[in-house]
Amino acid sequence: MFTGLSAFPLTPMSEQGIREDEFVGLVQRLATARVDSIGVLGSTGNYMYLSREERARVIHLAVENAGGVPVVAGIGALSTRAVLELAEDAQKAGASGVLLAPVSYQTLTEDEVFGHYEAVCDALDVPLCVYDNPGTTHFSLSDELHGRIAALSKVKSIKIPPVAGDIEEARARIERLRALIPEDVTLGISGDPVAAVGLCAGCQAWYSVLGGLFPQRALAITRAAQAGDSETALRLSNELEPLWALYREQGGSLRVIATVAEVLGVVSSPSLPMPLKTLQGEARRQVEQIIERL
Amino acid sequence: MFTGLSAFPLTPMSEQGIREDEFVGLVQRLATARVDSIGVLGSTGNYMYLSREERARVIHLAVENAGGVPVVAGIGALSTRAVLELAEDAQKAGASGVLLAPVSYQTLTEDEVFGHYEAVCDALDVPLCVYDNPGTTHFSLSDELHGRIAALSKVKSIKIPPVAGDIEEARARIERLRALIPEDVTLGISGDPVAAVGLCAGCQAWYSVLGGLFPQRALAITRAAQAGDSETALRLSNELEPLWALYREQGGSLRVIATVAEVLGVVSSPSLPMPLKTLQGEARRQVEQIIERL
Repeated sequence: MFTGLSAFPLTPMSEQGIREDEFVGLVQRLATARVDSIGVLGSTGNYMYLSREERARVIHLAVENAGGVPVVAGIGALSTRAVLELAEDAQKAGASGVLLAPVSYQTLTEDEVFGHYEAVCDALDVPLCVYDNPGTTHFSLSDELHGRIAALSKVKSIKIPPVAGDIEEARARIERLRALIPEDVTLGISGDPVAAVGLCAGCQAWYSVLGGLFPQRALAITRAAQAGDSETALRLSNELEPLWALYREQGGSLRVIATVAEVLGVVSSPSLPMPLKTLQGEARRQVEQIIERL
Repeated sequence: MFTGLSAFPLTPMSEQGIREDEFVGLVQRLATARVDSIGVLGSTGNYMYLSREERARVIHLAVENAGGVPVVAGIGALSTRAVLELAEDAQKAGASGVLLAPVSYQTLTEDEVFGHYEAVCDALDVPLCVYDNPGTTHFSLSDELHGRIAALSKVKSIKIPPVAGDIEEARARIERLRALIPEDVTLGISGDPVAAVGLCAGCQAWYSVLGGLFPQRALAITRAAQAGDSETALRLSNELEPLWALYREQGGSLRVIATVAEVLGVVSSPSLPMPLKTLQGEARRQVEQIIERL
């Protein structure tokens, strides 16, 4: 399950809650495209901005509409208690796996983060992917800590932050981590702009924001890389450079991809929960131009 | 209400929930000491680790046991929707004021943070204190943004992060901010180690972790500073230097003060919600020695 293309859909929101029809529409696009897994309630799916009930509902809707594609659900929260409840909810709703980031308010110690993963793994029936995203969690997992956590029996994948754009440098980073973790734990790349590089450098999965909205393009990149055709994978990714440039300018993918979805009419506007806002003014015009060009 | 000593009690926790008797005990100590206000559900009160129901319960218990001392309640959350619910709960439970930090998961823009405060102020009946704590929120309020937010009619105080230890430098910083905000908005210092300096340099309030456990000592420092007796205020604070050193070593006050409360037997151990842990081993022995010496 934690290999190939894992596509992360948005959770379209109004201030009244989830726009369920639009969310179902996004999931059905992914099911039709036959992505390898659907990753709901990632950062792209606004997991930290939803209530427990809303998170259970999102997983339920995803499983119901995934056409048999495995659904992986984000269960991150600040307290271990809350994560344990979310893990139970996710399993009951039919998630095939879970994704857990060491979200923080108080700065965490390594010992605390290990204890958090250990308690959650003890209670899980499904496999877990460690979600390493220092940009949002404000906790950096050291390689040594990755090794300790990956040795827990439920851990089957690590979603790593963006690698270097240079393929040899990326390969060296991936091999360093690979040497510290069990063989059956996959490494998956996040950060769409370097995903092709990551896959060509040895990552077995792409945890993909792009794939949540454009599954065909993301699948084409993934399948080329899986077939050893680095040239095609990198070329297909490079064609999206205007989009990657916008990710960099806007400090991440969420507001950009949500704006793209709004401009395409796939979701209503506004689609992000306040205080978050999609792009307006000049940045939105840039999005419109990029969509036209691509 | 947003002047003098605002004492922030811990919310003692087990993995099953709030230890209500112990929390009530902490509040009653503050009521007996006649602090100027009681600040529940601050960072010290673990607000971000509690459910909506638990947060309402904490405010209810505090108001019931405060002996007429005003209760200020933290209402921070990631989504504006959640903050609006918490604001309503706090008002219903009898809070006299609220405290709001721009908590983030996705990095926020200035525009988003302003919109967040504006929406909350529009819905509030009680006054609000802006809680500026970049160490936990990962958002730094610029002075210009402070000015815009402080102009909202419900805003009556700003809880600022630690100032420089040098009193003249602190005074300059406070005067810079003071020039940008309405006269009826107070400035309150946080960061116990520099609180005496902050008060002597012009802050009208101390949002105090120390005061949540040792109200008499914190009141003595506050009253000396309010009377213009900087020498006494600074001396009383300097006597606590071993405690301040431990705050610095442990990256903040929460784990230290929770450990002090455990060692004193005022709360049961463990008192913090997982994944957070109080100090163990050598650091705990240091706490025991400091308590003995003081």
